[in-house]
Amino acid sequence: MSDQHILSAYDRDLESIQALVMKMGGLVEAAILDGAQSLETRDVELAEKVRANDKAIDELELRINEEAARCIALRAPVSKDLRTVLTTLKLAGSLERIGDYAKNMAKRTNVLVEMREIPGPDASLRRMAREVEGMLRDVLDAYIQRDAKLAEQVREHDHDVDQMYNAMFREFLTFMMEDPRNITACMHLHFIAKNIERMGDLVTNMAEQVIYLVTGELPEDSRPKADSTSYISKVD
Amino acid sequence: MSDQHILSAYDRDLESIQALVMKMGGLVEAAILDGAQSLETRDVELAEKVRANDKAIDELELRINEEAARCIALRAPVSKDLRTVLTTLKLAGSLERIGDYAKNMAKRTNVLVEMREIPGPDASLRRMAREVEGMLRDVLDAYIQRDAKLAEQVREHDHDVDQMYNAMFREFLTFMMEDPRNITACMHLHFIAKNIERMGDLVTNMAEQVIYLVTGELPEDSRPKADSTSYISKVD
Repeated sequence: MSDQHILSAYDRDLESIQALVMKMGGLVEAAILDGAQSLETRDVELAEKVRANDKAIDELELRINEEAARCIALRAPVSKDLRTVLTTLKLAGSLERIGDYAKNMAKRTNVLVEMREIPGPDASLRRMAREVEGMLRDVLDAYIQRDAKLAEQVREHDHDVDQMYNAMFREFLTFMMEDPRNITACMHLHFIAKNIERMGDLVTNMAEQVIYLVTGELPEDSRPKADSTSYISKVD
Repeated sequence: MSDQHILSAYDRDLESIQALVMKMGGLVEAAILDGAQSLETRDVELAEKVRANDKAIDELELRINEEAARCIALRAPVSKDLRTVLTTLKLAGSLERIGDYAKNMAKRTNVLVEMREIPGPDASLRRMAREVEGMLRDVLDAYIQRDAKLAEQVREHDHDVDQMYNAMFREFLTFMMEDPRNITACMHLHFIAKNIERMGDLVTNMAEQVIYLVTGELPEDSRPKADSTSYISKVD
């Protein structure tokens, strides 16, 4: 009877922490989409909104940390329950960093409004951002439903994001060589593309954490890595 | 008597976890220095060593996670003790990411050997990497000695790293505009500079965690941010 009581108190705590993670996840998804849109439409006000909303994301992480510590201290969960709480802390940490990247992405809107337009990259960046946002949505679903298979699918998608990034890197080199007046704009666009690629990496880490949460084991094969720009040296 | 026993068991656990963190920190420091040297001397073998050593860093993080979970489950620490264990987990997470950046930095050595040399950036990159390595050394000292003042000094140093990065960003733009044959090399060098700047950010996060560990509060003023390249738009 007393055991039952302790168990359900832990469950209630966990449910409330999970709700905060989902809320945080929703804000981060919005930050990615709004950040990408602010870049594409050169919407400085929307970019400012993304920056302001990042504070709410940071505060949610602190609250999740506090509630998780409180849950551990009060309920003293062990084995699988403890793993769940600690993994949730890691997921919140990753979400906070993805939010930071989205904020940094939005910040560049202020620069892009003063740059010469380069057709092409805008659409590619939006596609990349949407891809990452979709991955994040799936990984949050996988987390809440304890669905390791869905998390595995998210991991595989990271390859697509990396491919998109590699294609853009080559595209930027070409634009810069064609016309030196494109150089500054391309440096900023490259920065943004790399930001989105890093968000994809973090979502992939989250997927691995979800797999660990469900199965008790991290995926054995190290994640397929496809940022091959470190091998691009022959363009010039 | 029984209380005393529980307390010292926790202390022993914590000491052993802290020893693992310091070991991990030592490996990450070496990775930063070796990574920077492999770039500067175009030493492909040393770069390969950095990549291989990253596995040891990753394994140490997993071990720290396991021992921390074990400590929480067995000793059920509360308040300050629990905070210490949870913060240690975060520090290990940051170290793992800094190690990843060092590995990515070393990986670019393979590209740079095939690039035309651009005098100047090599020395600047080495200086930046040394600065970050020094900050990391200090933050590990601050952690083990619970020295919030030293951690605060580390935070202030991040400004210097950001300034170095900003100067390099401008330097790259100039080189690329002077001669389009510099473009590919500069894109890679910019990538490396940004990597080192991010390591500095992570060390700064670690400093904030140490302050939290010692004082129970995160520094109130959000960290001085000085990556001002998002405002550089007038070079062309």
